Amino acid sequence: MNPIAAPLSSADTALPAHPTAAWQVTASQPVQFSVRIANGLLEPENPLLAQQCGCTRHTPQRRLVVVDRNVDTLYGEALRRYFDHWRIQATWQVLEIDESHKNLEQALLIVHAMDRLGLLRRHEMVVAIGGGVLTDLVGFACSLYRRGVPYLRVPTTLMGQIDAGIGIKTGVNQGGHKNRLGSYFAPAGVLIDPGFLASLSQRHINNGLAEIIKMALIDDAGLFHALESAVGHLPPRAWATPGGPLAQIMERAISGMLAQLTPNLWEQELARSVDFGHTFSPALELHAKPMLLHGEAVAVDMALSLGLATRRGYLSQAEGARALQLIERCGLPTQNPVFNATLLQRALAQAVQHRDGQQRVPLPGPLGHCVFVNDLRPQELTGALDWVALQRSSNERQRA
Amino acid sequence: MNPIAAPLSSADTALPAHPTAAWQVTASQPVQFSVRIANGLLEPENPLLAQQCGCTRHTPQRRLVVVDRNVDTLYGEALRRYFDHWRIQATWQVLEIDESHKNLEQALLIVHAMDRLGLLRRHEMVVAIGGGVLTDLVGFACSLYRRGVPYLRVPTTLMGQIDAGIGIKTGVNQGGHKNRLGSYFAPAGVLIDPGFLASLSQRHINNGLAEIIKMALIDDAGLFHALESAVGHLPPRAWATPGGPLAQIMERAISGMLAQLTPNLWEQELARSVDFGHTFSPALELHAKPMLLHGEAVAVDMALSLGLATRRGYLSQAEGARALQLIERCGLPTQNPVFNATLLQRALAQAVQHRDGQQRVPLPGPLGHCVFVNDLRPQELTGALDWVALQRSSNERQRA
Repeated sequence: MNPIAAPLSSADTALPAHPTAAWQVTASQPVQFSVRIANGLLEPENPLLAQQCGCTRHTPQRRLVVVDRNVDTLYGEALRRYFDHWRIQATWQVLEIDESHKNLEQALLIVHAMDRLGLLRRHEMVVAIGGGVLTDLVGFACSLYRRGVPYLRVPTTLMGQIDAGIGIKTGVNQGGHKNRLGSYFAPAGVLIDPGFLASLSQRHINNGLAEIIKMALIDDAGLFHALESAVGHLPPRAWATPGGPLAQIMERAISGMLAQLTPNLWEQELARSVDFGHTFSPALELHAKPMLLHGEAVAVDMALSLGLATRRGYLSQAEGARALQLIERCGLPTQNPVFNATLLQRALAQAVQHRDGQQRVPLPGPLGHCVFVNDLRPQELTGALDWVALQRSSNERQRA
Repeated sequence: MNPIAAPLSSADTALPAHPTAAWQVTASQPVQFSVRIANGLLEPENPLLAQQCGCTRHTPQRRLVVVDRNVDTLYGEALRRYFDHWRIQATWQVLEIDESHKNLEQALLIVHAMDRLGLLRRHEMVVAIGGGVLTDLVGFACSLYRRGVPYLRVPTTLMGQIDAGIGIKTGVNQGGHKNRLGSYFAPAGVLIDPGFLASLSQRHINNGLAEIIKMALIDDAGLFHALESAVGHLPPRAWATPGGPLAQIMERAISGMLAQLTPNLWEQELARSVDFGHTFSPALELHAKPMLLHGEAVAVDMALSLGLATRRGYLSQAEGARALQLIERCGLPTQNPVFNATLLQRALAQAVQHRDGQQRVPLPGPLGHCVFVNDLRPQELTGALDWVALQRSSNERQRA
């Protein structure tokens, strides 16, 4: 098999007698983007957002700006003021967003907006401002439109700022499955303004906290200790304060997440420690009533996984109990009535399909480290549920 | 800005006082696949197709096989015999395929078939057997399903074998625009059996010929001369004959196409010589009545572009006339009633959006070479139409 030759010379007028009958196509796609903490992103004098959009005040530019309804209500005026200052003629696309709207129909609304604008393929960057569902949707639409147009991610939730918004994965739900359709499509950049967090509810703060706890348990014992010290002092306003202890926690979580994602950006390796808490949670997100937020479902999965790890001796009983306590003290659920043996086995079977035929379940052990298992048995799953129930009642007794 | 550090040590329990506030994500995605001429692909003893599917006779395997109705009618029995021999349990998805069915709905049919099968994410390769529309559709669905599952391309038309089937582009039409949604998603491999061409109509042979003429005009004068010698002897059966002169033409066209595609697989460079004939043709494909095949629309565009190039002196009048004659002698159209000044200007404006704000129109000159222009004016377009009309009547007079 021959590598691709240089283009044939036009002087070469006779065709070769024995032409190549097999070719090898070899190429490599470089990806590069920055993730920045940017306090005061919407202050008109701050050039960062305009710069990342490729805009200066010298030449007026058009940009499609996709936001969710909440962002528009809370920050629409500040955003319009900012874009006016930088002579950016923003076309607004406001979407109603929650997990139940994360579908192809919403992605097509973004496609139609790009068509109406007559977006140039490379220079008119799309700006996505919102939570993880919104940035996933915009990334999905941008990855497909003309086979890819550049987009900027401005995540506005804690979940988006430390997890969903900073990688290259995009997706929509399809056929009752989470992110069944999606792509790997790097943004042109990610701008994280913790100031957005001041307007989050405590529940949505806790939702993001679940992913920080995840990083702590499988990757960073120091982060675990920092969370233990901070717990009880985690209101939205504290997250929004530049330079405070929570800013350090946030940056540590982002560092850890990017260090895990970067060497495996296209998931060539399916055993991923950042999948801790994400084996059983997809089924929970689909079936729990009332609906759970993503991080809440991840928390319930992490609690179960702590049970699995502790019962196998990967974590000491003390570490397991301490980790479960941290999840509870962060205001996150650790069990759910629909989480029974049948659902767990079905969820595991679906994870096996997604992980190409093996379980590859990440478990913590010891604290701050990750092990992968491929031999979980049904009895272990119910055993782990029992472990969680036992810990919970013991914790309740302690509090009483 | 710091590069991604190694994961933080879990022993490092105190958070740093001045954590990094910006990260640079840098990575590279390698792509490698082979394109092979494979005569007798469906002969049961030929292991190639089974091997490329990752199958041996030792272990039975399941595979999703997506074919179009024509392929199923003509080759369904041979395919079933082949898969049975290799103990491949094939799940068949038969699609009604033409350009008007190249849409999201058809792509979702393929997604549903993958869901029903419970496809493993990496090892159960999807097999696409059909023309360019089918391989584009299957590639599109596979690029999105779980953010990408591997697929094998077996193009069965001349257009597919020398053009649409051998690159990494996928796509569906959307909102009245050709390939408005799509992706760059390399196949696991491409297997080209010229034997399939024996059952094509002459019209579909000529459809593929248009893209071979394109390669000849902008990249390979030797191929142009070979086509001139062969013209008049281009029936479907001759294409299907291994080792004959048409096999050499086919391989030369594939070599040239892959040499053009490989250094620019993700179209970082938007000035692409292989876009010759593809500036005005998308509008023609949408508006011509009766509908034109892709290659027929490309032929009409090439004729116009020859007029543009000749009037500018990039080609001599003799070369321009000779090239137009070759297109006509290959049974391809060189003009169309809907191709008027208004439509041409609208088509050019849309190409400018797709090419990020510049025309970047590839024109041949001299034969076997390509130049790009950014300054086409409306009068030139009508002048080129006149040139084509003049040549046509002069050719008719010669034939009379």
